[in-house]
Amino acid sequence: MSSSSIGQRYVFTSFGESHGRCIGAVVDGCPAGLELEEKDIQKMLDLRKPGQSIITTQRKEEDKVEILSGVFRGYTTGAPIAMVIWNQDQRSHDYENLTLRPRPGHSDYPAYVKYKGWNDYRGGGRFSGRLTATFVMAGAIAKKLLTQTIGVDTYSYTCQVGKVKMNAQAAPKTKNSIYDNEVRCPDPKMAEKMRSVILAARRSGDSVGGIVESITTNLPVGLGEPIFGSLESDLSKALFSIPAVKGVEFGSGFYGSTLHGSQNNDEFVTKNGRIVTKTNNAGGILGGLSTGMPLILRIAFKPASSIAKKQHTVDVKTKKPVSLIVQGRHDPCVVPRAPPVVDSLVSVVLADHALRAGFIPSVIR
Amino acid sequence: MSSSSIGQRYVFTSFGESHGRCIGAVVDGCPAGLELEEKDIQKMLDLRKPGQSIITTQRKEEDKVEILSGVFRGYTTGAPIAMVIWNQDQRSHDYENLTLRPRPGHSDYPAYVKYKGWNDYRGGGRFSGRLTATFVMAGAIAKKLLTQTIGVDTYSYTCQVGKVKMNAQAAPKTKNSIYDNEVRCPDPKMAEKMRSVILAARRSGDSVGGIVESITTNLPVGLGEPIFGSLESDLSKALFSIPAVKGVEFGSGFYGSTLHGSQNNDEFVTKNGRIVTKTNNAGGILGGLSTGMPLILRIAFKPASSIAKKQHTVDVKTKKPVSLIVQGRHDPCVVPRAPPVVDSLVSVVLADHALRAGFIPSVIR
Amino acid sequence: MSSSSIGQRYVFTSFGESHGRCIGAVVDGCPAGLELEEKDIQKMLDLRKPGQSIITTQRKEEDKVEILSGVFRGYTTGAPIAMVIWNQDQRSHDYENLTLRPRPGHSDYPAYVKYKGWNDYRGGGRFSGRLTATFVMAGAIAKKLLTQTIGVDTYSYTCQVGKVKMNAQAAPKTKNSIYDNEVRCPDPKMAEKMRSVILAARRSGDSVGGIVESITTNLPVGLGEPIFGSLESDLSKALFSIPAVKGVEFGSGFYGSTLHGSQNNDEFVTKNGRIVTKTNNAGGILGGLSTGMPLILRIAFKPASSIAKKQHTVDVKTKKPVSLIVQGRHDPCVVPRAPPVVDSLVSVVLADHALRAGFIPSVIR
Amino acid sequence: MSSSSIGQRYVFTSFGESHGRCIGAVVDGCPAGLELEEKDIQKMLDLRKPGQSIITTQRKEEDKVEILSGVFRGYTTGAPIAMVIWNQDQRSHDYENLTLRPRPGHSDYPAYVKYKGWNDYRGGGRFSGRLTATFVMAGAIAKKLLTQTIGVDTYSYTCQVGKVKMNAQAAPKTKNSIYDNEVRCPDPKMAEKMRSVILAARRSGDSVGGIVESITTNLPVGLGEPIFGSLESDLSKALFSIPAVKGVEFGSGFYGSTLHGSQNNDEFVTKNGRIVTKTNNAGGILGGLSTGMPLILRIAFKPASSIAKKQHTVDVKTKKPVSLIVQGRHDPCVVPRAPPVVDSLVSVVLADHALRAGFIPSVIR
Repeated sequence: MSSSSIGQRYVFTSFGESHGRCIGAVVDGCPAGLELEEKDIQKMLDLRKPGQSIITTQRKEEDKVEILSGVFRGYTTGAPIAMVIWNQDQRSHDYENLTLRPRPGHSDYPAYVKYKGWNDYRGGGRFSGRLTATFVMAGAIAKKLLTQTIGVDTYSYTCQVGKVKMNAQAAPKTKNSIYDNEVRCPDPKMAEKMRSVILAARRSGDSVGGIVESITTNLPVGLGEPIFGSLESDLSKALFSIPAVKGVEFGSGFYGSTLHGSQNNDEFVTKNGRIVTKTNNAGGILGGLSTGMPLILRIAFKPASSIAKKQHTVDVKTKKPVSLIVQGRHDPCVVPRAPPVVDSLVSVVLADHALRAGFIPSVIR
Repeated sequence: MSSSSIGQRYVFTSFGESHGRCIGAVVDGCPAGLELEEKDIQKMLDLRKPGQSIITTQRKEEDKVEILSGVFRGYTTGAPIAMVIWNQDQRSHDYENLTLRPRPGHSDYPAYVKYKGWNDYRGGGRFSGRLTATFVMAGAIAKKLLTQTIGVDTYSYTCQVGKVKMNAQAAPKTKNSIYDNEVRCPDPKMAEKMRSVILAARRSGDSVGGIVESITTNLPVGLGEPIFGSLESDLSKALFSIPAVKGVEFGSGFYGSTLHGSQNNDEFVTKNGRIVTKTNNAGGILGGLSTGMPLILRIAFKPASSIAKKQHTVDVKTKKPVSLIVQGRHDPCVVPRAPPVVDSLVSVVLADHALRAGFIPSVIR
Repeated sequence: MSSSSIGQRYVFTSFGESHGRCIGAVVDGCPAGLELEEKDIQKMLDLRKPGQSIITTQRKEEDKVEILSGVFRGYTTGAPIAMVIWNQDQRSHDYENLTLRPRPGHSDYPAYVKYKGWNDYRGGGRFSGRLTATFVMAGAIAKKLLTQTIGVDTYSYTCQVGKVKMNAQAAPKTKNSIYDNEVRCPDPKMAEKMRSVILAARRSGDSVGGIVESITTNLPVGLGEPIFGSLESDLSKALFSIPAVKGVEFGSGFYGSTLHGSQNNDEFVTKNGRIVTKTNNAGGILGGLSTGMPLILRIAFKPASSIAKKQHTVDVKTKKPVSLIVQGRHDPCVVPRAPPVVDSLVSVVLADHALRAGFIPSVIR
Repeated sequence: MSSSSIGQRYVFTSFGESHGRCIGAVVDGCPAGLELEEKDIQKMLDLRKPGQSIITTQRKEEDKVEILSGVFRGYTTGAPIAMVIWNQDQRSHDYENLTLRPRPGHSDYPAYVKYKGWNDYRGGGRFSGRLTATFVMAGAIAKKLLTQTIGVDTYSYTCQVGKVKMNAQAAPKTKNSIYDNEVRCPDPKMAEKMRSVILAARRSGDSVGGIVESITTNLPVGLGEPIFGSLESDLSKALFSIPAVKGVEFGSGFYGSTLHGSQNNDEFVTKNGRIVTKTNNAGGILGGLSTGMPLILRIAFKPASSIAKKQHTVDVKTKKPVSLIVQGRHDPCVVPRAPPVVDSLVSVVLADHALRAGFIPSVIR
């Protein structure tokens, strides 16, 4: 399988480069009969779009999606759905001096070695965060499919920036307030503090990391497969494809490893005739399968590698030390733009599993 | 692709159940010409074997591997290598009362729903930690292949049990001392403290979680693929297949998300004519590709779900509450048995990528 | 994906060698709840077994299958079903002189080059017709699954040996008589003539080719996928894996290419309330999808390469000409042993598609 | 894997519909460093383009390809190469009455059932022969890659139309004359006869079938994999994706099944220091692996289903009989436009295998 593709039944292929003609996505396996128009996808792309506030990159991209195939008279046909966004505001000259002087924290160096210099290095090329817009194209469709067929819904939000963190998970009722602030944190007070941390980093020519939390409600019981098809396996594979992600955990995660079984086990109870667990340290997954409880995961983003401070590197040809100030327009913190990307990849993986397990049929109407 | 399989060029398929006739593995894509006998695999299986000390389960299994195919006159042939271990010490009656009374923290409940009761529930069946022995079968071959062809080596160890943790990464020179103690921690003082934590949990009929750290040295630069074939994607997919794993992080991981870019970026320098980084917060991976620095990852294990304490659950038929004391022989902490499993899966993924990228040819001799 | 595996939802992996310890199969993705015991598979293996008559090889193999996993209390569990047959009657010394002297018509030469001599050449190793017994293991389960869930049934038979051919397709009612004769031809008169052709070839130390025809009834409409997932694509991929197969055609096939559209098109009519076609030149497939009419295909087998006559070859080391008389026990015509193999692969492919399209659910009971 | 994709290392995904906005292809896995511009692809597309002569469809399409990604400064980068052709001369109204009245010999009926009417039926939609232009996009790149790296070359030609056939295979030296005539037959006399057969069919509102033969020279020995990765398996899977193909055979094929082993076996000899076979009834493949002899295959095309004659069908809603005259502009014989398509798919499969086996590296320069 191509390393630009993911999924078995809902198969998503990403193409394009940061400063090439366009970026695009092909989704194959979306059931026929789903009402779909460009604005369904555009809405979600707009939440990720750069240049929306002072705490994100100032690159201006409308990120206007065009559907090229797979939709006929407003409904999906069962054929592959190809989509593109034409790039607009590239400033490739910012990158000319980077070819031979790899930026610390970036893919430049291993990519140069791997491709012997043939890769399109402009703006990070294939390794750019810009490619996450293709994840959103595929994810917006998956999210709509899941909601409309089996009522599954995913929402993700910034839960930590630097050392500032929310105290608790966001309840479903707060999901509509996530996009009320630039930080994408449903707790407005914490959002304000996080914003200050990002602005402080920006002012000092630096960047800062953070954590996104993602919650999915209304999953059927038994989604996922044993061993290598576990939900955790497939979700983490997708999520680690987001540039800057360096950690993924489910439920009590790393904290849970400090506990005793008697503290971490979730006891089963019956509630309104349904079998549920009292607590949800498992994050909604046992044995790789969904338990019917909310799916909870957290994703650690490193601080963005592109900073305005002077850094040291080496010239890959001469191997001599050189210093470097990264030009270009960059996010001082990538986390505020990540929630729609996380929603998207979670939806892509869950749609794939829901189709594989027959929870969603190949023609939905 | 089957959810019991992983890999594109080094393809590993796992089969068997905890209390069935056997567990087994098929490895396809191992290059021809690798010297291989059963004892190469047995050595690594012995490190994972149950019943070795008071801090692990008392189930006795010799875990003696038999190679069924793919090896001729002591060398691999390029054909699939099938292997089995015949199960010996099942005590399935311990599980008879579990079918309808799902154990908290176990796959019992979602598996029951998914398979409508047809799954082999004995000892967790397909979801049992016992299946990690099949990972070791495939991994021992991958590890030997990597070492013998391109000198890549992986070592993993317990770095935390409950709240007791090592202060620093283990240097390569300590790798031979990992198996000197039952805990599999290269720091003998910390190992002793961890052992006490496990024994305390055991005495109180409880279990405790922990963390395994894994280090791989001598990787070539540029292993891995962009987007969904990133090393982090493929490694995490494999590692989350281990039962009880709830978190995976690379390099500075979750901690790194609290830092600034100027703190977390690894600057490039030249050392002995090679381009390296001064620090290694990236854990040896940038843009999903290996940088040539050591690959560093950590895996969070939840406390084992099977505890001797009374717990509450419900009967899946009547939906009435019932209490439960888990019978059977279980690990009070699964972490000490995990390092060879982690080594194995890391090796399987790296061998796959090394073959895909041509670092290892299809016939090695 | 491994080249020893086929399928997306019903995934079959084959392992073993002709003269190794065993041959085996792993089937993953078989739904839970199918009643299955070894004799279900044995029955079909017995139809393929060598040494049954004077017109087949005299190698004696009981071909007794053992199920190693995936079945619990007489029903499939949804876990991978591993199976083995232990080899018994190898006479490997017959092959010792073949390593460096490739047999005309055999895989010996390209396999030697590909594996640089590391492959297990005994009895053809991985390339032996003996591996088709693993196809039958996977196929017997697929066939039972198809019959029991959606009533699909496949029967295959010898329709040509050398130049002797049946005049018409065999009607479903004759399917029970296919195994009444050694040739596996439902027309007893033609069977007798074909038998004479095979015996004549045998007597002269020669071999003869032939054709198998396969018919599948009761397929639902719309099985298969556009483009690369067409039924013809997936069936031919499977069938060309049988050693000695050099041609595959569907419906009017090669003959159809001599016709006009007005002759070859099958007009639609309504019959008993169902839409059917008057003729079936399409062989039950249009646009890669099943039409609901019988699926009809024909497979051309070359004459077996192993003949007792003296042949010329070269020594691969010295590149000098040498002459060769192939030792060992061989089929003078492989066609009579092929029908259960064809049934098997057709069933494997159709079961895969039926699962992918949701005609068969993941738990069938 | 998506049914719109093929390949493991050279992965080609096709999208688009006959009368949609565009048709397109994404190729992932093409090595970095291949010189590539649109005209490399355009040249081959022009050979397939409709409207070129009186014996093909009169639909006018420029079929002008645009490369959207994966090429930088005139060389491939190792990233996915996305390409599109914008559709121009659709006349969809010709198809309005076809939705409910399936054309004999077309995918209309099973597609209607499969997609419950949601599919884009205009011009056959996803099932149209027009999609073979996407095969050429992917194939032109594969062909250039093979030629430039390992000197492998494929040429295909019309060898039979109706009952008129060439007597012998075309020698490599004739390959440049294939496109000298509209029929794409390297024998000008036979080409003239074939042209008459096609024109006669056209005049009578009918169509006619035919056969394409394909020859590939200079293959290395040992390409292909045992069992399901045999060259025959992968080539036939690709070739049966071409609409109207109903048979595929290699070497002596169906005719070979009438022969004796002593006639069909190809004896090995040494020629100019290379081991070759005296004859080539195997068509260059033994045991699924290339022998180094020319790869020879033949593909049977049924007569085009769209004919101007009145035909009978049924209304899928009322199930009442109706008569039908297929409107639109159609090929009276699809064979003359098929050779570049066959070249393309053969090249795609061989490039994939050459990359898998390491004959072509991931960066070629």
